[in-house]
Amino acid sequence: MAIDSRFYASLGALTLESAAHLSGASFTGDPAHAITGIGSADMAKAGELAFIDGAGAGQTSLSEHLDVVVVPESARARVPGGAAVIISSLPRFTHSLIASALFRLREAGPASDGNISSSAAVHPGAIISPGAVIGPGAAIGEGTLIRPNAVVGPGVQIGRNCVIGANASVHCALLGDHVTLFAGARIGEAGFGVMPGPQGLEDAPHFGRVILQDRVTVGANACIDRGVFADTIIGERTKIDNLCQIAHNVVLGRSVIIAALAGISGSVRVGDGSMFGGRVGIADHVTVGAGVRLAASAGVLRDVAPGETWGGTPAKPLRQWMRELVWLSKQAAARKHD
Amino acid sequence: MAIDSRFYASLGALTLESAAHLSGASFTGDPAHAITGIGSADMAKAGELAFIDGAGAGQTSLSEHLDVVVVPESARARVPGGAAVIISSLPRFTHSLIASALFRLREAGPASDGNISSSAAVHPGAIISPGAVIGPGAAIGEGTLIRPNAVVGPGVQIGRNCVIGANASVHCALLGDHVTLFAGARIGEAGFGVMPGPQGLEDAPHFGRVILQDRVTVGANACIDRGVFADTIIGERTKIDNLCQIAHNVVLGRSVIIAALAGISGSVRVGDGSMFGGRVGIADHVTVGAGVRLAASAGVLRDVAPGETWGGTPAKPLRQWMRELVWLSKQAAARKHD
Amino acid sequence: MAIDSRFYASLGALTLESAAHLSGASFTGDPAHAITGIGSADMAKAGELAFIDGAGAGQTSLSEHLDVVVVPESARARVPGGAAVIISSLPRFTHSLIASALFRLREAGPASDGNISSSAAVHPGAIISPGAVIGPGAAIGEGTLIRPNAVVGPGVQIGRNCVIGANASVHCALLGDHVTLFAGARIGEAGFGVMPGPQGLEDAPHFGRVILQDRVTVGANACIDRGVFADTIIGERTKIDNLCQIAHNVVLGRSVIIAALAGISGSVRVGDGSMFGGRVGIADHVTVGAGVRLAASAGVLRDVAPGETWGGTPAKPLRQWMRELVWLSKQAAARKHD
Repeated sequence: MAIDSRFYASLGALTLESAAHLSGASFTGDPAHAITGIGSADMAKAGELAFIDGAGAGQTSLSEHLDVVVVPESARARVPGGAAVIISSLPRFTHSLIASALFRLREAGPASDGNISSSAAVHPGAIISPGAVIGPGAAIGEGTLIRPNAVVGPGVQIGRNCVIGANASVHCALLGDHVTLFAGARIGEAGFGVMPGPQGLEDAPHFGRVILQDRVTVGANACIDRGVFADTIIGERTKIDNLCQIAHNVVLGRSVIIAALAGISGSVRVGDGSMFGGRVGIADHVTVGAGVRLAASAGVLRDVAPGETWGGTPAKPLRQWMRELVWLSKQAAARKHD
Repeated sequence: MAIDSRFYASLGALTLESAAHLSGASFTGDPAHAITGIGSADMAKAGELAFIDGAGAGQTSLSEHLDVVVVPESARARVPGGAAVIISSLPRFTHSLIASALFRLREAGPASDGNISSSAAVHPGAIISPGAVIGPGAAIGEGTLIRPNAVVGPGVQIGRNCVIGANASVHCALLGDHVTLFAGARIGEAGFGVMPGPQGLEDAPHFGRVILQDRVTVGANACIDRGVFADTIIGERTKIDNLCQIAHNVVLGRSVIIAALAGISGSVRVGDGSMFGGRVGIADHVTVGAGVRLAASAGVLRDVAPGETWGGTPAKPLRQWMRELVWLSKQAAARKHD
Repeated sequence: MAIDSRFYASLGALTLESAAHLSGASFTGDPAHAITGIGSADMAKAGELAFIDGAGAGQTSLSEHLDVVVVPESARARVPGGAAVIISSLPRFTHSLIASALFRLREAGPASDGNISSSAAVHPGAIISPGAVIGPGAAIGEGTLIRPNAVVGPGVQIGRNCVIGANASVHCALLGDHVTLFAGARIGEAGFGVMPGPQGLEDAPHFGRVILQDRVTVGANACIDRGVFADTIIGERTKIDNLCQIAHNVVLGRSVIIAALAGISGSVRVGDGSMFGGRVGIADHVTVGAGVRLAASAGVLRDVAPGETWGGTPAKPLRQWMRELVWLSKQAAARKHD
């Protein structure tokens, strides 16, 4: 993937040898092979370091451009001939270690820099309220209002006629026009990625972004995490209620409506015009088609075809769920004196 | 409804003709008929523009004072004789367009105004902590503490001996005495109202307020949305735990106890002294009586009579739910080798 | 318990007589008996005032050092001989009243004190971003980054190489090294403790702390409440996702993984290495063993033995839950034309 330099400063390329050295790993391939970026194994371009975890059983396919990869000894056979290889029993951890030597997340300066960075581009027709902080390299479009004590992180691009609510925060994100974030919304934090390291659990770094297309609305205290090696994308006019969680790499279509307290797990896809009741949960990597309706509290564990209406936990077609509930209720009532 | 001028600036009345012109709609009635306010169809007073959506099937009754209304052609027959009419195939959208030309939400000034507005009335016995922002026209009573980086919006009235937590925000709200908001609580954001517009989904504007009566406590990162054309009201000594969502137009009685992660949907009514376990959900427009107990995780889809104890999703009387669970468990165990 | 003077200022000891006088209660014992602290009935040390609620049926045991206690007349017989007694029909309320005369929660100073208190100890190698507020007596270690508009409360101790997210807040807490709080996380607010008072419901004060051990990660807008008379403790390398609620007095082991929107109720214990799916709820005082897995949406009402995998609401072993669901589904399908 192309790492967005507005959010991550490039620290320069590494050679295969220096990268392997960082993590104390062995390698095969030209020691001078240049590692210029990072990616996922299915999407990596030439020069982008990827990793294959475990035996790669869950890995659907490898990028044809993959030319340098971290793998455990056990998965070495999966690496295409000619690709450089770094051997690690903790491939994701080793990959993260090298990635962090290639890219550094940008941060706001110290307090002495003041609330509005001198390198931010704030349109004269935008209003920055008291206490709001605008990071270096951020851009705020005409007619946009940043309410008090909101935080716009380094490099964040916000279009025209947006409203960023009080105490909301936005990092590693691109916002279109007429985007509304209610108070306390959290856009672009790193997602929840826990990986094993040599000393125990570690947080996996996230190098993607959040894209909020035109006229997206995000409710109070809702959270949308940035992607790992790709973007989390919320389609035009999609409306998300308070206290929802949208995890890394999720792609929501246009005009999706999500009521409060939903939990949409990593890499979920949702088609245009779907409508979710309150407290819905969707497991990771599930695809929900266009025009799907989910009853409040539904817990979705598998793909839902376009146009369907589901409910229950684990979720199933609404009629089936209701029929089962009614049947159970009748049976239990009939036999309560058994 | 009377729009509270502390939160919404009046932009002056419109004539029927100018209002219709704004949205390109046709109308019948005196072109000079004055539109001075807005309301819901069941509550509007003379001069207040209301709307009737669809064929009005869900509309229980119309205000006897209704004298100007936006309706689709199909619902024209429902309008009382003599009332002025604006015809729109998107009545709520047209109503919102006109409403936004009548009233404008007040905002904090620019950063140059400083953190504490010169027009705010802060009692000398109140403490405003570093980084807190107090908007124009806000009032803070004696003995009240505003913790760091909290935001008190324009016109907000806070009584005596309240505590507003760190990074909490309050807009369009009236707070009594001894009210406590924990850190990150979000009071008075616009509710989740999605309506169709000519280009797709639009956010419905909200013109109501939040009323927190004496000794209400609101947990960390909990959200209470303001009403659409009425107020969201939380009764005296009601206690709301962290991460709860209380939607627009909800009315909670006195001494209600709501544990964490509850989702109370729009226009729900809850009677005095009810107690809800964690992760409870209540569908919109449901009425829950006084003294009701809801088991943790209950998902309530219909009215609950006073004094009852319910559980499950969809919720039912607790004994019935438990009996069904026990019966199912026994049956499945007995037949597991079938 | 020893009250941590970094978070609570001691207002000096009280005599039994003066303490009883505060609340208008009667007492037995030496009027000059010194009350120097507070505690729970099972943990109180000499001089620490405790209380016994109701008839004490739920009270497992009393501390052998208990020498002064608030009890209702009905529970007087449970008090060990020789202990001083304050009689109250609202023992917890009376205890809280006296506790508040013994200790006062420390607060940030007024806005005029500036964002970084002169009595805070900020390591020169730490970075405090614009808008962040650091309270009196707080300490920030080397390499730690406090992002914009975060709030570090009075006396809070933060170790090395931590990251405190934008708009996050931390009160009454001790953080180890390499602790990460994402944006909007709420650490150390008072927990949800509602008690009856003479006029109705009251918030029970909380005198404990939150301890986040090394390499703990807390997600965006997640909440961890401080304990009542003890600490809420999150073990090393435990990872908590966005929008989770961790209540007062919870103790989580090491390397616990908790996905988004979980609700962990008061005094729950969780063993090392347990993993919870999204939207899990656990009732108060439940003990979950080490290495337990909970399926997404599980609602746990009773203890779970180490190594088990549970699901459903009320939760049970996953296989049993799945078997019941499958059986119900088959039965209802077979009889749908009955």
